[in-house]
Amino acid sequence: MGSNSFGNLFCVTSFGESHGPALGVTIDGCPAGIALGVEDFLPELGRRRPGQSEITTSRKESDQPELLSGVFEGRTTGMPICVVVRNENQRSKDYEKLRTEFRPGHADETYAGKYGHRDHRGGGRSSGRETLARVIAGVVARKILPETVCIIGHTLQIGPHRAATFEVGAIETNAVRCADSQAAEHMTGYIQELQREFNSCGGLVEILVQNTPAHLGEPVFDKLKARLAHAVMSIGAVTGFSYGAGFATAEMRGQDYISDRRNFGGILGGVSTGEDLRLTASIKPSTSVGDTAKQGRHDPCIVPRVIPVLEAMVAIVLADAWLQARAYQ
Amino acid sequence: MGSNSFGNLFCVTSFGESHGPALGVTIDGCPAGIALGVEDFLPELGRRRPGQSEITTSRKESDQPELLSGVFEGRTTGMPICVVVRNENQRSKDYEKLRTEFRPGHADETYAGKYGHRDHRGGGRSSGRETLARVIAGVVARKILPETVCIIGHTLQIGPHRAATFEVGAIETNAVRCADSQAAEHMTGYIQELQREFNSCGGLVEILVQNTPAHLGEPVFDKLKARLAHAVMSIGAVTGFSYGAGFATAEMRGQDYISDRRNFGGILGGVSTGEDLRLTASIKPSTSVGDTAKQGRHDPCIVPRVIPVLEAMVAIVLADAWLQARAYQ
Amino acid sequence: MGSNSFGNLFCVTSFGESHGPALGVTIDGCPAGIALGVEDFLPELGRRRPGQSEITTSRKESDQPELLSGVFEGRTTGMPICVVVRNENQRSKDYEKLRTEFRPGHADETYAGKYGHRDHRGGGRSSGRETLARVIAGVVARKILPETVCIIGHTLQIGPHRAATFEVGAIETNAVRCADSQAAEHMTGYIQELQREFNSCGGLVEILVQNTPAHLGEPVFDKLKARLAHAVMSIGAVTGFSYGAGFATAEMRGQDYISDRRNFGGILGGVSTGEDLRLTASIKPSTSVGDTAKQGRHDPCIVPRVIPVLEAMVAIVLADAWLQARAYQ
Amino acid sequence: MGSNSFGNLFCVTSFGESHGPALGVTIDGCPAGIALGVEDFLPELGRRRPGQSEITTSRKESDQPELLSGVFEGRTTGMPICVVVRNENQRSKDYEKLRTEFRPGHADETYAGKYGHRDHRGGGRSSGRETLARVIAGVVARKILPETVCIIGHTLQIGPHRAATFEVGAIETNAVRCADSQAAEHMTGYIQELQREFNSCGGLVEILVQNTPAHLGEPVFDKLKARLAHAVMSIGAVTGFSYGAGFATAEMRGQDYISDRRNFGGILGGVSTGEDLRLTASIKPSTSVGDTAKQGRHDPCIVPRVIPVLEAMVAIVLADAWLQARAYQ
Repeated sequence: MGSNSFGNLFCVTSFGESHGPALGVTIDGCPAGIALGVEDFLPELGRRRPGQSEITTSRKESDQPELLSGVFEGRTTGMPICVVVRNENQRSKDYEKLRTEFRPGHADETYAGKYGHRDHRGGGRSSGRETLARVIAGVVARKILPETVCIIGHTLQIGPHRAATFEVGAIETNAVRCADSQAAEHMTGYIQELQREFNSCGGLVEILVQNTPAHLGEPVFDKLKARLAHAVMSIGAVTGFSYGAGFATAEMRGQDYISDRRNFGGILGGVSTGEDLRLTASIKPSTSVGDTAKQGRHDPCIVPRVIPVLEAMVAIVLADAWLQARAYQ
Repeated sequence: MGSNSFGNLFCVTSFGESHGPALGVTIDGCPAGIALGVEDFLPELGRRRPGQSEITTSRKESDQPELLSGVFEGRTTGMPICVVVRNENQRSKDYEKLRTEFRPGHADETYAGKYGHRDHRGGGRSSGRETLARVIAGVVARKILPETVCIIGHTLQIGPHRAATFEVGAIETNAVRCADSQAAEHMTGYIQELQREFNSCGGLVEILVQNTPAHLGEPVFDKLKARLAHAVMSIGAVTGFSYGAGFATAEMRGQDYISDRRNFGGILGGVSTGEDLRLTASIKPSTSVGDTAKQGRHDPCIVPRVIPVLEAMVAIVLADAWLQARAYQ
Repeated sequence: MGSNSFGNLFCVTSFGESHGPALGVTIDGCPAGIALGVEDFLPELGRRRPGQSEITTSRKESDQPELLSGVFEGRTTGMPICVVVRNENQRSKDYEKLRTEFRPGHADETYAGKYGHRDHRGGGRSSGRETLARVIAGVVARKILPETVCIIGHTLQIGPHRAATFEVGAIETNAVRCADSQAAEHMTGYIQELQREFNSCGGLVEILVQNTPAHLGEPVFDKLKARLAHAVMSIGAVTGFSYGAGFATAEMRGQDYISDRRNFGGILGGVSTGEDLRLTASIKPSTSVGDTAKQGRHDPCIVPRVIPVLEAMVAIVLADAWLQARAYQ
Repeated sequence: MGSNSFGNLFCVTSFGESHGPALGVTIDGCPAGIALGVEDFLPELGRRRPGQSEITTSRKESDQPELLSGVFEGRTTGMPICVVVRNENQRSKDYEKLRTEFRPGHADETYAGKYGHRDHRGGGRSSGRETLARVIAGVVARKILPETVCIIGHTLQIGPHRAATFEVGAIETNAVRCADSQAAEHMTGYIQELQREFNSCGGLVEILVQNTPAHLGEPVFDKLKARLAHAVMSIGAVTGFSYGAGFATAEMRGQDYISDRRNFGGILGGVSTGEDLRLTASIKPSTSVGDTAKQGRHDPCIVPRVIPVLEAMVAIVLADAWLQARAYQ
């Protein structure tokens, strides 16, 4: 399997560069008979799209998906689903300097070393724009899972500001996707301040999965937590992954750990218990700061836009594990 | 590929239960002509073995590996290498109660639900004893990598005690594998105290890889950090994974982040830069506490014994990525 | 890996239906720096295209490939190469009857049973038009192999007519791609006669690979002959595969078999010897005969058009094996 | 996935050399709760074993399987099943000459070239003895399939002698596993004659699968016929594979082809129809003839002993396809 594919039974293949003709995804292993149309992709693509608020990049793309295969008369056929999104914004001259100058903290230098020849425009394949493919595949993945499964990503922390309350209805009402409206205001202010200084910041995202089916995940290398870690850490901006009590377990005692099942994060022995999954991802600050930020169109804080991508990757892992569990039942 | 296999070109298949006849591993994809004998496995198996110090389980196993295939006249042949370790300690009566009673925080309940029929003795397949297979494969993996590559795991924190200094020579001189001898004493005392209370604790481990070859890792789903996360999170005791500045990036600003290349952890764009890899894993406290701890043979703190397993998994990922990079050169 | 993907290091993913918006292919694992443009695909697509001669279907498609990713400034970047071909000819009304009526010998009945919901137009995914994807991938595969490697498919037999001589220059000069010009005339006449009766015929194709690199193929399940068989038998029209002396070995004695190395077909122990590969595939007669043939646009003999597809699949297997051999060198 | 593994959901990993300590197999993906014990393997191992009749090699191995994992209290646990068979017969001195002398038609020369260092004793990994692993996995595969599925291999032809009748009860009553007792006598006589001349012969085997479940096989690269071809052609002695009318389709007309559904071999569009599968494999004559045959212990005709291996490989493919079909249902 190629390194641009992910999944065993629900297998996603991503392709495309930031400033090439198009990006897209092929989804192989979606059962037949599921209602699906291009319009299904629009809400999630909208959530991922730049230019949604004052704290995101001003790059404007309409991100119009086109369904090339696998759907007939509004329903999936069991055949591979290919969805393509054309790139409209190909101002490649903006990026001429990047042919030889490497932006610090970016893939520029490793790709140049590894491949020799590369598409330097806007990060090329390493651009966050690749995550379009994941968001599209995530929409299909969700359709395979039982309808009750609910994947909720939200911002736990940005810089020094941490959410103190959790109100699910608040998440989509603020620019940072925080479930604590008051904290959201502080976070937004903090980001705007950094933006003015051509600086940036990172954050923490929590992903909750409610009504998770029990018995997902396979011993020993495909433990659910391992597959989730792989999926989540394959997103460029993610620097850390944990589940349940996560890094806090380092300071916990066993008696305390087992006293609250939420510490298990919904996974025991690598297999889902049927309780809520609780995952955390740390997001690095955008490395497009200073001079790089002055020229380009960059997010001072990528955290809110990473959330739909994180949710999509979780959905993909769960759909794959769900199909696999059915095979062995 | 089965869920008990890991790796593309260097492919490891683990098998066996804690109290079955044997555990073992098949390693497929080791190039021919590499010197290898059973004696090569002994040092790492020794490091993983229980009963090494006052703070580990008293279960005693000689862990004698047997080389069944893939080696001829002391060198690998390019054929699958199978290594088997017999279980001597099969006091399965000790575990009769576990047939129906589930230990909190263990795989007992999820395995029972998922499989119906299971080997309940000592965790069966979900036992930490399975990691023998990984340690053995790790020894072979290291032989594929350039000799200069050096993988060093050490305990960063246990409970409230954190290492303040780093002296590589100290790591193997104390029971907790800490590079700070003084912190090691505090950690050991802390563990012994918990042991007396039939309690347990977790910790943090750092894995450094010195002289890492550049250009390992493949876009986009097989980024080196994603493969490492998968491998590390597939170890039962691990609750979190990060690289470089890791979870601290959540509070960092971009200018600070890019000001110190160590924050990148040796990986940019998912590809190794050639600098030291810097990975962190959080380890949960053993869930065998209270009554469970009174009856069985358990570690109050698994952290030091997880280190050789972590190192092995890192070696396996690097060997696989190394072979893959050669294919595309 | 999904079932619409093939290959380990050189991994091809095919998508698209005969009468959907487009067909295409994603090629993951092509090394960087290889000269590639859409124009490279045209000759092979031309060889596969219908309407080339009096004995092929009159369906006319311009088969214009579009390169969506993986190529920058005329050279591959190491990123997945996606190529899409739009379907122009979507006269789906012609196929309305096929919604409920199954053509004998086609996938219609099994797809209907397996998937329930299916694209019935012109065979949908099961149409021979899918092989466009393979031909495109084959072009890229050939660019990875040493330039001297030469893959030659030619028609050995059609109905009762068998080639008696082998003149490589003759192959592309006749409608049946036969290396014996005189036999080609008989074959063509035979096909035309069947065409008038709305009947069809099958044939035998031989694929020779000259200057095959030695040491391709991996024990034990990825023997070169096994991978080639998988690839070749995945083409809809192929009913049998053999290498070297093939089915004739059933009647051979060992002494005779070993007396002529051509009997080994260039493969010993599943690994290429460096001699010419010699493969044979049997092609079934088109099952679109009688009433089905009267209505549609069908080939009375698919053999000549299968040849570029066979060559492509062989190229894909060799490219994959070639990369794998490099990894273990 | 390594090249010594086969299968997606039912994944078999084979290991071991002819004259090393042991051969064996790991079977990953067998559902839990299936009755299984070592005694289940004995009948099939017996059918494969040498020394069963006057026309097979006199090498005697008791082939005692040992079950190392994956079974508890007589039933599978869903965990990988490892079975090992020790080699008793390690008269490696017999083979000292093969260190540098290559037997014609064997893997000796390609393995030496590819790997440099190899186990030359009795073919090492390339020995037919490796098929033990397949036969063992086949037994498990059959347990996954519905009990009514019946896989029957029988000898169709040996040298010039072809079966003219089909009596299923006759197959196991003669040394050549022919369903025509009279033809079996001629075949046996023919083999004995060749044996006296230190010569050998090949043959044709047919494999029938009765009560095949419908809807097995996945488009487009995992068509059932493609997976079966891969599996069957991965057996060293097999030189050709076909299904249904097979190579005879080359001379057939479409009207004739569709007039008898047996020509489809139970597969349409790459998917099983629910009718009997009908597969054919051509087997090459043993290449251990003349001087090689005089020294060693070789079969003058391997055909009858290949039959249980062919049946096993078919069972493995069907079990894998069966699990996959369940996933997508």
